[in-house]
Amino acid sequence: MLGAVRFRGGGETGVRQPGSQGAAVAMADEAAKLDEALRRQGDTVRRLKQEKASPEEVAEQVAKLLELKAQLGTEEGKHKFVLKTPKGTRDYNPKQMAIREKVFNIIISTFKRHGAEVIDTPVFELKETLTGKYGEDSKLIYDLKDQGGELLSLRYDLTVPFARYLAMNKITNIKRYHIAKVYRRDNPAMTRGRYREFYQCDFDIAGQFDPMIPDAECLKIVHEILSGLQIGDFLIKVNDRRILDGMFAVCGVPDSKFRTICSTVDKLDKATWEDVKSEMVGEKGLSREAADRIGEYVQLHGGLGLIEQLLQDPKLSQNKLAQEGLGDMKLLFEYLTLFGIADKISFDLSLARGLDYYTGVIYEAILLQPRNAHKEEPVSVGSVAGGGRYDGLVGMFDPKGRKVPCVGVSIGIERIFSIMEQKVEASEEKIRTTETQVLVAAAQKKLLEERLKLISELWDSGIKAEMLYKKNPKLLNQLQYCEDNGIPLVAIIGEQELKDGVVKLRVVATREEIDVRRENLVEEIKRRTCQP
Amino acid sequence: MLGAVRFRGGGETGVRQPGSQGAAVAMADEAAKLDEALRRQGDTVRRLKQEKASPEEVAEQVAKLLELKAQLGTEEGKHKFVLKTPKGTRDYNPKQMAIREKVFNIIISTFKRHGAEVIDTPVFELKETLTGKYGEDSKLIYDLKDQGGELLSLRYDLTVPFARYLAMNKITNIKRYHIAKVYRRDNPAMTRGRYREFYQCDFDIAGQFDPMIPDAECLKIVHEILSGLQIGDFLIKVNDRRILDGMFAVCGVPDSKFRTICSTVDKLDKATWEDVKSEMVGEKGLSREAADRIGEYVQLHGGLGLIEQLLQDPKLSQNKLAQEGLGDMKLLFEYLTLFGIADKISFDLSLARGLDYYTGVIYEAILLQPRNAHKEEPVSVGSVAGGGRYDGLVGMFDPKGRKVPCVGVSIGIERIFSIMEQKVEASEEKIRTTETQVLVAAAQKKLLEERLKLISELWDSGIKAEMLYKKNPKLLNQLQYCEDNGIPLVAIIGEQELKDGVVKLRVVATREEIDVRRENLVEEIKRRTCQP
Repeated sequence: MLGAVRFRGGGETGVRQPGSQGAAVAMADEAAKLDEALRRQGDTVRRLKQEKASPEEVAEQVAKLLELKAQLGTEEGKHKFVLKTPKGTRDYNPKQMAIREKVFNIIISTFKRHGAEVIDTPVFELKETLTGKYGEDSKLIYDLKDQGGELLSLRYDLTVPFARYLAMNKITNIKRYHIAKVYRRDNPAMTRGRYREFYQCDFDIAGQFDPMIPDAECLKIVHEILSGLQIGDFLIKVNDRRILDGMFAVCGVPDSKFRTICSTVDKLDKATWEDVKSEMVGEKGLSREAADRIGEYVQLHGGLGLIEQLLQDPKLSQNKLAQEGLGDMKLLFEYLTLFGIADKISFDLSLARGLDYYTGVIYEAILLQPRNAHKEEPVSVGSVAGGGRYDGLVGMFDPKGRKVPCVGVSIGIERIFSIMEQKVEASEEKIRTTETQVLVAAAQKKLLEERLKLISELWDSGIKAEMLYKKNPKLLNQLQYCEDNGIPLVAIIGEQELKDGVVKLRVVATREEIDVRRENLVEEIKRRTCQP
Repeated sequence: MLGAVRFRGGGETGVRQPGSQGAAVAMADEAAKLDEALRRQGDTVRRLKQEKASPEEVAEQVAKLLELKAQLGTEEGKHKFVLKTPKGTRDYNPKQMAIREKVFNIIISTFKRHGAEVIDTPVFELKETLTGKYGEDSKLIYDLKDQGGELLSLRYDLTVPFARYLAMNKITNIKRYHIAKVYRRDNPAMTRGRYREFYQCDFDIAGQFDPMIPDAECLKIVHEILSGLQIGDFLIKVNDRRILDGMFAVCGVPDSKFRTICSTVDKLDKATWEDVKSEMVGEKGLSREAADRIGEYVQLHGGLGLIEQLLQDPKLSQNKLAQEGLGDMKLLFEYLTLFGIADKISFDLSLARGLDYYTGVIYEAILLQPRNAHKEEPVSVGSVAGGGRYDGLVGMFDPKGRKVPCVGVSIGIERIFSIMEQKVEASEEKIRTTETQVLVAAAQKKLLEERLKLISELWDSGIKAEMLYKKNPKLLNQLQYCEDNGIPLVAIIGEQELKDGVVKLRVVATREEIDVRRENLVEEIKRRTCQP
């Protein structure tokens, strides 16, 4: 989905990373170069620390430093092992997982509310399955080493595997979601939530239906999810590949240049019109006049009014493709108005989307003012969702070329996640990373066996319970453990309680203690932790 | 976790698959060979079909056939595109996902009941992170192609990434679970639920604690999960690496041969003692006498009685390691008895486990009589869970070699899943793949706008609702859609209802219809689908 955003980073990764193991063998003076790079990187980190830069930023630079050190180690033959995750990837610690679960729950419940089924596909596909689907982005695909057998690549998105799945199983009609990690050898920018391994949450509707009804539902879903996440104001830009192609035609772009000019227009969300124009005229060899005509169109954005205006446009009204696209766009806005979400949608002629396979409506959602944004960050943190209609993709896989029209949307959670993370840190709200209801504790020594018996009773009754893995833990340490981990209750046993057939139940927050008959303990815990 | 089971398959994958793209270039007569292989494979499939073999078995053979055809295509230069997932992998369709979710929920709720946090790590690691951790199984690791930058491999299990995570973050104390896919270039046997991409559900306890308390909890967890899944009777074999090493020592195995002899013993779950012995004497060069002495020990299995007996064993009682291991084993059985699960645990001297990194207690759970098992299948479908103590692994990553004692267990769901799948098919119970509560339907034409308005109201009130993506669907088709998808309610609108400000709510099962005032519709739907 992040095709548009990912596009610009792409070029840089085309070149070998300095000091890659491959390059190491190739070049002789590598080590010297690295020494220099290492020194410079060291300075950068020191400077950032003095400037009190954001922890993420420092962490990122330190990571680069470690990488260089590792490479230097390899260069010099003496192996220095570096403890890190691969470039552009991250671990999720329990706190981060808790936030991630929260985000997923909102997304999944929205997909289910719209009646979607769920599927899963392998993390890698036959290399040829991905070939010729991503245009200029293909160079970002991770290939697996040929160890004998099939040539494999890591999935680049969830859309192509979905199309492969439909064709393979001859499915012509399905509404499904799929949440999984995808892989892009892109230039990571972790502080902005851009990774080489990242999640996509896809919802797609496949089947032959009446125009714009499924397309409108996809936009409704984006609206529901971004509202539900409460991460600030957002805008959903929409356009149509047919309108773009019609526009290119009337501006005098030769058919052969449609796709490549489209890729250039796609950069407008990051680059100025001047840069984009000079790429069109320079690299892509478009006439200055054609570029200027495009320039006039791509400034336009609005709603139904703009659609009406373009339907009357002397040039566009002569182009069949454009007319189709504009007609459907009008229908779409009518449906979005019935859904009550038209105010957040902007028909934007500068929206192009990076990927090759779109054939009709395309859209992209951007956050406008993320809460607790970094001071360094621009007002827009860029795309958090995107998608569109791809009626030709399944046909590329079907032996008989049978077409299955599809439209879908992909939510990219990494940016959303880093905003939520900052939000939590700022609000200092304490999130629990376990659901433990009660700690089984002992008041005196030599009660390990009794603790084991009691906790096993609780587990078997479905109570979430923990105990310290010590033979004779101090009561104070056991209570402290509850404080530290937000465990609400403590079930304390001592000689006296055992004699009396009771357990002392302590409420950590209030320090209130009551004796509960052993046979009533489970009920009492369930009652006090309001778990049915 | 499946180290033991996976071991034997390993050898075969060492050799290049015939017709791999690499081999294609290398060999000239490849195409001819493939033609032959193709013919033979064709016969196999035809035979199986005549013999009415199980669908899975046929499917597997057909897959091989397709693969050969693909390769032949490549050989001959003329590219035949084959629509398939990579060898040893599978898609999950919505029905299968529903079953998978059920299995995961039982496993996750058990992990949470024991107070575990959750983490996640990348699907690939630096190659060197995995180096030297898996012994003879290392050849099954998937490497990524060197595209510049770091050398990467797909994770082989979740244990090594966990140890890397602990060392990297200097964590000395954590109880966490991790559920994710792992990758092994093994010989797949899909009918028996053996894949190259498969899930592991890991629970581990890291930290310095009193002996056998965390170890006992891991076994309790396996017992809770396998009981909860209701997939038939099971047995958990336990042993200890220290007892094995002590046993090898007193049998006259030279220290240098401990690991390799251990790997051979590990094959006892699949091979006969004669085969194992001949490998010890032949390949591994052990003396016949030593092998025979080992042979006597590895036949032994039992409970506390056997432990007591071995503690008195004239030879073993002289060995410090064995004494330690047996002492702890006795303690473990005492704790398991307090947990009330000792009856399902068998102290088995033939259990060795494949992986290198175990240092103490090891265990493996096997299903005894899976329900609805294939007639072809043996009484034991083999290991569904395994694990043990690995006190040295984290130290391998720590720059200062600081040790963090760990014990854990890994549940392999693929076998469990295929049993559950057969169970569902046999019972013919209809599983829903969506949660849709109501279908928004129209009784007459020209009501699309009204349907869109109503469904959007329902979605915004949290109701799971669907509608057909047609402008004017027939009422009969709309009702049929509910029958097919198990949707319990239909909200029908027609001109009259709109005039009266009501919606006709139809109960699909009973065909009962009532008029509900529009403002009460959400409440009524929630009430009838008993959703709060």
